[in-house]
Amino acid sequence: MSATTGVRVLAFDTFGTVTDWFTGISGAVGAELPAVDAAEFTREWRRRYGPILARVEAGDLGWRGLDDLQTETLADVASEFGVTVDDDTARRLVRAWRIIPGWPDAAPGLRRLATGFTVCALSNGSVALLTEMAKHNDFAWDFIGGSDLWHHYKPARETYCGLAELMEAEPHEVMMVATHQTDLDAARSYGLRSAFVERPDEWGGAPKDDAGSADNDLHATDLLDLAAQLGV
Amino acid sequence: MSATTGVRVLAFDTFGTVTDWFTGISGAVGAELPAVDAAEFTREWRRRYGPILARVEAGDLGWRGLDDLQTETLADVASEFGVTVDDDTARRLVRAWRIIPGWPDAAPGLRRLATGFTVCALSNGSVALLTEMAKHNDFAWDFIGGSDLWHHYKPARETYCGLAELMEAEPHEVMMVATHQTDLDAARSYGLRSAFVERPDEWGGAPKDDAGSADNDLHATDLLDLAAQLGV
Repeated sequence: MSATTGVRVLAFDTFGTVTDWFTGISGAVGAELPAVDAAEFTREWRRRYGPILARVEAGDLGWRGLDDLQTETLADVASEFGVTVDDDTARRLVRAWRIIPGWPDAAPGLRRLATGFTVCALSNGSVALLTEMAKHNDFAWDFIGGSDLWHHYKPARETYCGLAELMEAEPHEVMMVATHQTDLDAARSYGLRSAFVERPDEWGGAPKDDAGSADNDLHATDLLDLAAQLGV
Repeated sequence: MSATTGVRVLAFDTFGTVTDWFTGISGAVGAELPAVDAAEFTREWRRRYGPILARVEAGDLGWRGLDDLQTETLADVASEFGVTVDDDTARRLVRAWRIIPGWPDAAPGLRRLATGFTVCALSNGSVALLTEMAKHNDFAWDFIGGSDLWHHYKPARETYCGLAELMEAEPHEVMMVATHQTDLDAARSYGLRSAFVERPDEWGGAPKDDAGSADNDLHATDLLDLAAQLGV
C-alpha cells in the first residue's frame, strides 16, 4: 500500500500554504503605517498569531474569532513599534488577511487536485474570511472548514477530526497539506496523512524551515508538484 | 430601497430547487426495483421526507443524519408497495440522492450568480452529501451549509440564522432561494429575504404549486432569470 492509498480528502492550511500573507500584509501595513518597517512589523504580527490562538485552546482566553485575536495582537505590535493604530485602520489591516494573494500555483493547483479529490480548506480563519479569500483568489474549494465551525483552533483535535467527520471519512482517508510541520504532526497524531509543501518565501526573505519530516507521507515543492505526485 | 438592496449572500435549497430528484431517484428505483411503479414509489418516498425530519425537530426522534432517515422511510415505502429491499439495495438507493442531476440552468446559473454574490447551499442534506452532489453537477458553491453543521433541519431557525452567522451577515443580507414556499416563509420569519424559483416538473408530471407568494422579494422562472433580476 502506498503512502497515499485510500486518500479521498485533501485538507489545506491556508495562511502560508496556499496564500502569501507576507506580501499581502506587508503591502497593507506599508500603505496604512508608512512610519514603520512594514516587513518587520508584518513578521512580528504573524509571530504573535500562534501564541494567542494557543491561549484560547489552553482555556486562558474564551472562544473568540480570529479577527478579534488579530486585533489584539495588532495593538500589541503597534505598541512595540511605537505607533498609534486607530480603530478604522486596525479594521482595515485585520480585513487585509481576507484578501492576501494566493501563491501562483495555488488556484491552478487546487483546481487540478479537485478533479481527483475533495479539496477543503482547514484553517484557523473563519468561514467568512476563507470564503472571501477564496472568491478573491478563485480557489476551487469543495468545502471550507473554518475555525468557527468547531470553536477550536488548530492544532486542536476537534478541527482535524471535525473535518473528517463532516466529510464522512475516516481520518486516514484525509491528507493534511501544510507548509508548517507542527500542523502536520498534529494531523498525523489524529490519524490523518500528511503532505509538506515548501514555501521558502513565506516570511518574505527571512529564514523559513522547509525541511519537512521523514514522517510525512509526501513532500512537494508546490501544489502542482503535489498534484503530479498524487497522480492527477 | 428595492427588495434586494443589501443582499450579499444567496442561500439555496437543493432538493428540487437546484436538483431534479424525481428524474434521478425514479431512474435509480426503476433499475433497482423493476417490479414497482418507479414514479409513484419515488413520489411516495419523497412525501415521507418532510414529516420524518419534522419528527427530529419536534424531539420525537433524536438527531440523526439524512441518510439514516431516508433509510427508514425507504423501508416504510417498500413495505407499502409490498417489495423487499435488501441492505445493499437500500444503501444504493439512499446514496442515489447524492448524484441526482441538476436542473439544466442550475450549474450555469450558480456560476453567474457567484460573480455578484456569495452562493451557499442551505439544505437538509449532510455536508458530505452536498459536496458529492456539487462535484457531480459542477455547482460553484462558495460554501456548503449542510444540516450536520447545526444538527437541525429546515425549517428550524438554527439553520437559517446559523448560515447568516457563518457568513458574518445580518439576516436581511441573506436571501433564501427555494421552490418551496414553506422554506421561504420560515426564512422570512427569521429576517431573511426570499426568492421563489418555479420548478413545474419537480414531481415528474404530478402537480406542483409554483404560485409562490406576494410576500417573496423575488419570483423567478429559473436561476438564470434570478441572475438577471439580481443584475448579474
